Amino acid sequence: MSTDDTTDTTDASTDAEPTCGASSDGTDTSSSCGASSESDTSSSASGSSCGGSSDSTDEKVGSTVDDFDADPGRLVAVGLGPGQPEGMTQRAREALLDAEHVVGYTTYVELLPEEVREAADELYDTPMCGEVSRTEEAIDRALAGNDVAIIGSGDPNVYALAGLALEILESKGATASMVDFDVVPGVPAAQSCGARLGAPLVNDTVSISLSDHLTDMPTIESRLHAAAKEGFTISIYNPWSRKRRENFEKCCEILGEHRAADTPVGIVHGAGREDERVEIVELGDLAELGETDLIDMTTTIIVGNAETYVWDDRMVTPRGYESKYDY
Amino acid sequence: MSTDDTTDTTDASTDAEPTCGASSDGTDTSSSCGASSESDTSSSASGSSCGGSSDSTDEKVGSTVDDFDADPGRLVAVGLGPGQPEGMTQRAREALLDAEHVVGYTTYVELLPEEVREAADELYDTPMCGEVSRTEEAIDRALAGNDVAIIGSGDPNVYALAGLALEILESKGATASMVDFDVVPGVPAAQSCGARLGAPLVNDTVSISLSDHLTDMPTIESRLHAAAKEGFTISIYNPWSRKRRENFEKCCEILGEHRAADTPVGIVHGAGREDERVEIVELGDLAELGETDLIDMTTTIIVGNAETYVWDDRMVTPRGYESKYDY
Repeated sequence: MSTDDTTDTTDASTDAEPTCGASSDGTDTSSSCGASSESDTSSSASGSSCGGSSDSTDEKVGSTVDDFDADPGRLVAVGLGPGQPEGMTQRAREALLDAEHVVGYTTYVELLPEEVREAADELYDTPMCGEVSRTEEAIDRALAGNDVAIIGSGDPNVYALAGLALEILESKGATASMVDFDVVPGVPAAQSCGARLGAPLVNDTVSISLSDHLTDMPTIESRLHAAAKEGFTISIYNPWSRKRRENFEKCCEILGEHRAADTPVGIVHGAGREDERVEIVELGDLAELGETDLIDMTTTIIVGNAETYVWDDRMVTPRGYESKYDY
Repeated sequence: MSTDDTTDTTDASTDAEPTCGASSDGTDTSSSCGASSESDTSSSASGSSCGGSSDSTDEKVGSTVDDFDADPGRLVAVGLGPGQPEGMTQRAREALLDAEHVVGYTTYVELLPEEVREAADELYDTPMCGEVSRTEEAIDRALAGNDVAIIGSGDPNVYALAGLALEILESKGATASMVDFDVVPGVPAAQSCGARLGAPLVNDTVSISLSDHLTDMPTIESRLHAAAKEGFTISIYNPWSRKRRENFEKCCEILGEHRAADTPVGIVHGAGREDERVEIVELGDLAELGETDLIDMTTTIIVGNAETYVWDDRMVTPRGYESKYDY
């Protein structure tokens, strides 16, 4: 569900050390993309182990805009929503059908509709951890003259690749206009999970990621305090991994300082996947659930505010109509 | 764009006093829905003027579950995304095709794909202000045995009808299970507008509505202070109306206390509509734009944080990769 996949896997895979970089899975035909040989080297030969390393500076952007002679193609960042084809917008589907190359994390490439997979000249997929090298590969392919779609679950603006793509474009000396950069929005995890829970988010709300890979923990803690104190509902992304279980514990502790132990909390594990589980619990019971398989890197947690209640197995945060209308 | 339409119109229509309740527009065949006569009275005869009134208790929920003899049909709240058919998910389209009755605000009903309009036995639409009576009408039709979809732009969990539907169901003595209540998520305005601006939202973020119709202004102000202080990017819904222009002025003042005058602010007016306008300005210039037609009830505003910058006409909030990776 989460799209912050670099972070997730770095944290989650402390036992295994998956090989990142180019993948030979499926219909991937990596190095025929037309990018310069320097580009090929940087992306497919990076082959570095991610996950196990404590320092992630092993992903490095290589080629620059000067390495490409072709007229650039187009680059579009497409949000797939929950990941299943039926959660995708029509506009996303059309953007994928229009693309010559589709680049993404293996799981999402495999979930693409058959029609999209067949229409593409090339599908390039990598395992979870290589978000930076995968994004660079997409950009190099666009700079080499191909129309490229880079995909992710949820929305490209929610802890995801829209920003990374622009940052890497800039670092290469390219511009967004050069590749006609566009973003096709998708349904974010908070909304996919909110829908499964009922109506937990209908008032002012915040999204906070518990991953301290790219944001330091004191900042995350301060944001949690402020959000909990001000009555926002809170969507928690990247709640847990073996490597940073203490972040989740700290989060539960902070929430408990500001909200009652019986505050409803919705937990959605693996939204849209075969192992999807939806549970509504009380805030006081949340910390101990961190030790169960309900909460992992595919889980999104929605914390109610003081008005949120559970009715008929649904979580409802009232918007305030009942104080204005006679019902 | 905004789905908080009761609020919007109450605020926006100080000159005109549109008739709310049932509409005779288009293919609407209101009272043949099979609901009890009491229900018909409550929804179509409400006919009360909204907007001009300072007190909105004139919308009243009438019938209860005991007024219906039929086996209830199904009720699904469907988020359309930006409003145009191509912004809708496949799942939303299928939910609409499956519904016997489709209920919504006139503008969105008129935007539905022809295929959906033709498949429905009945389309019931009302002008903007009657959100409560329209939602009750949808519920009454479901309790009367019809499969009903109630639609709105964006996502049903973002200042929208998922919560209102559950609240009214409860007030009628019905349950969510009784009508097999379900929510089909859509792309929220923040994401639709974020995509148009580039990558303004890729880190922790909040949504705040400036409408004080259902949330009091001291609460809104306190939330703005906290969000601005903690470095969240901020999506502002319902930023302006003639009746509450001072809320927008106050918001700009609060943001200015915590963030530099040159902080990038993205403004999207009428996303997905013919009069769409996208502008990136500086925070210090925001207040005076409240007096222009760029900012009205169809506008969503995205306020960057201290790291947000403008590059090649795109607004970028870095996620922090540049501090971890070598590019």
